[in-house]
Amino acid sequence: MLEIVIIGSGNVAQHLIKAFKKSKKIKVVQVFARNKESISHLLPISKITSDYNNLKEVPVYFIAVSDNAVAQVSSQIPFSNKVVLHTSGSVAISDLDDKNIRGSFYPVQTFSKNKNIDFTKIPICIETEQETMYKTLDLIAHSISDIVYKITSQQRKALHLAAVFVNNFTNHLYKIGNDICIENQLDFEILKPLIQETANKIVNLSPNEAQTGPAKRNDTQTINSNLNFLTNENQKEIYKLLTKSIIDNGKKL
Amino acid sequence: MLEIVIIGSGNVAQHLIKAFKKSKKIKVVQVFARNKESISHLLPISKITSDYNNLKEVPVYFIAVSDNAVAQVSSQIPFSNKVVLHTSGSVAISDLDDKNIRGSFYPVQTFSKNKNIDFTKIPICIETEQETMYKTLDLIAHSISDIVYKITSQQRKALHLAAVFVNNFTNHLYKIGNDICIENQLDFEILKPLIQETANKIVNLSPNEAQTGPAKRNDTQTINSNLNFLTNENQKEIYKLLTKSIIDNGKKL
Repeated sequence: MLEIVIIGSGNVAQHLIKAFKKSKKIKVVQVFARNKESISHLLPISKITSDYNNLKEVPVYFIAVSDNAVAQVSSQIPFSNKVVLHTSGSVAISDLDDKNIRGSFYPVQTFSKNKNIDFTKIPICIETEQETMYKTLDLIAHSISDIVYKITSQQRKALHLAAVFVNNFTNHLYKIGNDICIENQLDFEILKPLIQETANKIVNLSPNEAQTGPAKRNDTQTINSNLNFLTNENQKEIYKLLTKSIIDNGKKL
Repeated sequence: MLEIVIIGSGNVAQHLIKAFKKSKKIKVVQVFARNKESISHLLPISKITSDYNNLKEVPVYFIAVSDNAVAQVSSQIPFSNKVVLHTSGSVAISDLDDKNIRGSFYPVQTFSKNKNIDFTKIPICIETEQETMYKTLDLIAHSISDIVYKITSQQRKALHLAAVFVNNFTNHLYKIGNDICIENQLDFEILKPLIQETANKIVNLSPNEAQTGPAKRNDTQTINSNLNFLTNENQKEIYKLLTKSIIDNGKKL
């Protein structure tokens, strides 16, 4: 079994620990956590360290910490010529300390505490500066997921950005929907089946095929009626910009 | 059994016909369709008419046609003092011909051709100008769905608008995600599990609790890096506006 160490104790680290536990090819021999208690429910306390000087020597290290801590953490690893992988969508692998072989292992998913998720269905995007290391990365990724992509730094940047649109920004649209419900004494529950179906639709249809609504139909009457209804200037601005974008896109088709 | 007639042959009409077929309390005695063939797979041709003069007399009529045709269709019904319900989110019930008892029966969902959907889980919002009619509307709605809300015209307007945000606009964000993938030779499949999970998250979390990403963290470095990556001015504008909206919202919390 390939031995690895995971540095971090947040959502991504915890979900990785759980996923690797089920793997027959990878063994998590140690986890670094500043606060040992935070992950003591996942593995024996003897396998957790909060001291870089006690870090075990293994062929592969995972850095699953917040983006702005990745570089600093990588320089704390007291070994060299190991494979060091971060799990961030937006950090360049060149930010990692170059005493080790740098790479990234990016699971394209949003993780919540206390919510189990089937890791086998999460796409993992792998990248390394040393071509010969892809075999190892591929082995690790396939040990927990069925979906593995080899990507470049540029592609990872693009993917992270696309994820901001489909995840962070989409959630903000849910928030606006929720706000409109609250303002009008409506139960947000009413919108949840629609939200689910909107996400389900694009499993089989392209987003262009799935597009509906007043902007798609260029239905000026409904658009104006919607705009008149809105009193919040921020919501109005978002409505106008996204409507214009849908209409412009329709012209290009 | 309560007898009804459905006018229309589009997605909503077809899904309603299928749903009422399973109901033991409602009987669809006739459907009006300009093109009989379009729904001949759903019921015997003898039950389909394309002539308003042949419309059967029943207590309740459904108008499930495109928004801008609702008013005109309602005036073609050759009866009066019947219950006439349209299924639109954005048409006022006062747009219906006042020779009949006007109301709306709004299933808050997006319907696709050839995609079956469990109607029992679709919230149906009912509204009528005559208070005594709610019992009938409630009976009809509950005959096909477990989730029924009595709402006002103003609330239906709000709901339709909220649906534009969480459905139409969300789908457009998927489209932008797809575009970014295409431009960078990435498979849009990579984003689909994330899209699903984004929708799943808000089943148990409020959109405010579920919000993540650089804007939520006010992570200026990542925001600027994302903006530098974008070359499409329209995408840039949408990125800026939604980021600003998330940041401003965070300040209010």
